[in-house]
Amino acid sequence: MNLAELGEFGFIERVRQAAPAGPGIQLGIGDDCAVLELPPGHLLLTSKDLLIEDVHFRLSWTDWHTLGRKSVAVNVSDVAAMGGTPRHLFLGLGIPVDTAMADLDHFLAGFLEAAGEYGAYLVGGDTCRSPGPLLISVTVEGSSPKAEVVRRDGARPDDAIYVSGTLGDSALGLRQLLAGQRADTFPVRRHLDPRAQVSLGRTLAARGLASAMIDLSDGLLGDLGHILAASGVGARLVEEHLPLSPDFREALVVDPKLADLAWAGGEDYELLFTVPPEKEPLLAEQAGACEVGLTRIGTITGAEEGMQILDCRGRLRRPAGRGFNHFRSGAA
Amino acid sequence: MNLAELGEFGFIERVRQAAPAGPGIQLGIGDDCAVLELPPGHLLLTSKDLLIEDVHFRLSWTDWHTLGRKSVAVNVSDVAAMGGTPRHLFLGLGIPVDTAMADLDHFLAGFLEAAGEYGAYLVGGDTCRSPGPLLISVTVEGSSPKAEVVRRDGARPDDAIYVSGTLGDSALGLRQLLAGQRADTFPVRRHLDPRAQVSLGRTLAARGLASAMIDLSDGLLGDLGHILAASGVGARLVEEHLPLSPDFREALVVDPKLADLAWAGGEDYELLFTVPPEKEPLLAEQAGACEVGLTRIGTITGAEEGMQILDCRGRLRRPAGRGFNHFRSGAA
Repeated sequence: MNLAELGEFGFIERVRQAAPAGPGIQLGIGDDCAVLELPPGHLLLTSKDLLIEDVHFRLSWTDWHTLGRKSVAVNVSDVAAMGGTPRHLFLGLGIPVDTAMADLDHFLAGFLEAAGEYGAYLVGGDTCRSPGPLLISVTVEGSSPKAEVVRRDGARPDDAIYVSGTLGDSALGLRQLLAGQRADTFPVRRHLDPRAQVSLGRTLAARGLASAMIDLSDGLLGDLGHILAASGVGARLVEEHLPLSPDFREALVVDPKLADLAWAGGEDYELLFTVPPEKEPLLAEQAGACEVGLTRIGTITGAEEGMQILDCRGRLRRPAGRGFNHFRSGAA
Repeated sequence: MNLAELGEFGFIERVRQAAPAGPGIQLGIGDDCAVLELPPGHLLLTSKDLLIEDVHFRLSWTDWHTLGRKSVAVNVSDVAAMGGTPRHLFLGLGIPVDTAMADLDHFLAGFLEAAGEYGAYLVGGDTCRSPGPLLISVTVEGSSPKAEVVRRDGARPDDAIYVSGTLGDSALGLRQLLAGQRADTFPVRRHLDPRAQVSLGRTLAARGLASAMIDLSDGLLGDLGHILAASGVGARLVEEHLPLSPDFREALVVDPKLADLAWAGGEDYELLFTVPPEKEPLLAEQAGACEVGLTRIGTITGAEEGMQILDCRGRLRRPAGRGFNHFRSGAA
């Protein structure tokens, strides 16, 4: 069966039946709006992301199930970056009319699987045909107790700079895909099926450990730049402290220039956050319970110092490039 | 200047500066999520819509300012249909890279103008390049006191069926555009620059007058069909009671077949609602204060009667077609 046979409302009904009910959802798919209730005293956190075929993904690289998972992860990651709990997802699809129903079913299954892993529920959306590429538009709503929201603008001089997981893997995976390597390597998996650090973000926020936080979608330097600009501070990063995966280190041996990917490669969806000095002991206590490693990579400085890197030879230098700009360079 | 020169973050900064601050917005554009506060005791109402070039609109028919206005209206109309108050808007744009900055500025100005008319604020979004058509993805968040939300499933036999404004004008305008008529006629204006009935929806909800409500996006028969299916009821409509504009009546004289557009033409964005018999006197009192005319077009019946039309010759008949299906027929 294809979409033309099933029709718009047939497809929506199919999605409605597949989407489970959840707490606080008074009305999900099937009315003009979803009707939702947040926990008392919580603030509403909302973000939206567009994923466009041949800009953000290629159907020759990913299966539809994994694409559904990634559509959720990149969006939910924005709620993680505020320290919030993801709750509701809305899925907009612009679908080429010859798309097979089986492919959409796989996409939906991956979307719902990832939503379930993050404790979020699909409660609405919009579906139409696309005359061009496949279009995926996801909106996430989360919430957070009022006092716990972590913004970008709270970093202060002497705060420590931390990052979760490892850096540059996703960009390395993208490079492997672009080079025609189809092997299911660790970096390729990190690129196609990233994981949002919801649990870590929630822990940092609930314990009041992070003074500022952002998720790494544009690359370390670009995203740190957003924190510095919003907070009115500078930063000093220590090159040899950057956390790199075994796969990444192995690739570095062959081509040392790949180091740029750890600095400026996008889509790792790890959390970058700053921690006031007096909170570092408490962070160390929590770190053991985290599902992901945490690494201190530098220190916040005064704004006048800008961004500086202490390189492996002990010299201070300024970074050359920044993160990803959708209108200046090609992606995917 | 074009987008490639300004860059993604330059454009986002431009939007941020243009978007006014508003009540309950703790953090708007410029962090990972917008951080928002709803009035105590309110439920959250959320909807999203995709608008795709050459599916939903043609740039040869609309100016960018009007397109910005329509992007808001069609989305806010979903909140109106629940009886809610629109509050926050999120704008996702997939932009062909050769798009002129001046066009985007006009779009944004129209978007913000319409948002202001509905009392809603632009607080977030996403921007990227599109390899194909212009893509507009809008999410609206509104709210409503818990007891006042109007759903599709509350219609009961003997409830009166009402519609606001006039029917079929937008579809007639689309027909004029498709026929190459560029004149700034009333139907064309209704198609390109529709108005969401937010104030009416709010009044009906706050006074408890509507037992079920929907906005007319797919056409009268299609949208009434949604109410009937959700409520488990039937309906009898009176053909000669359908409210038609002078322009529509004039077109009917030339081509009587255009009557179909009043039954099944989409995108009028009027409200279709049902009113329990005992509430009709109260509705009549309120009607004078409404900005838009209200017309009783039929009565809810038992489910076994299905949908019936009492035509101008006094005969009962069943409707032939239904509303718009994105995967079976072409739009725009």
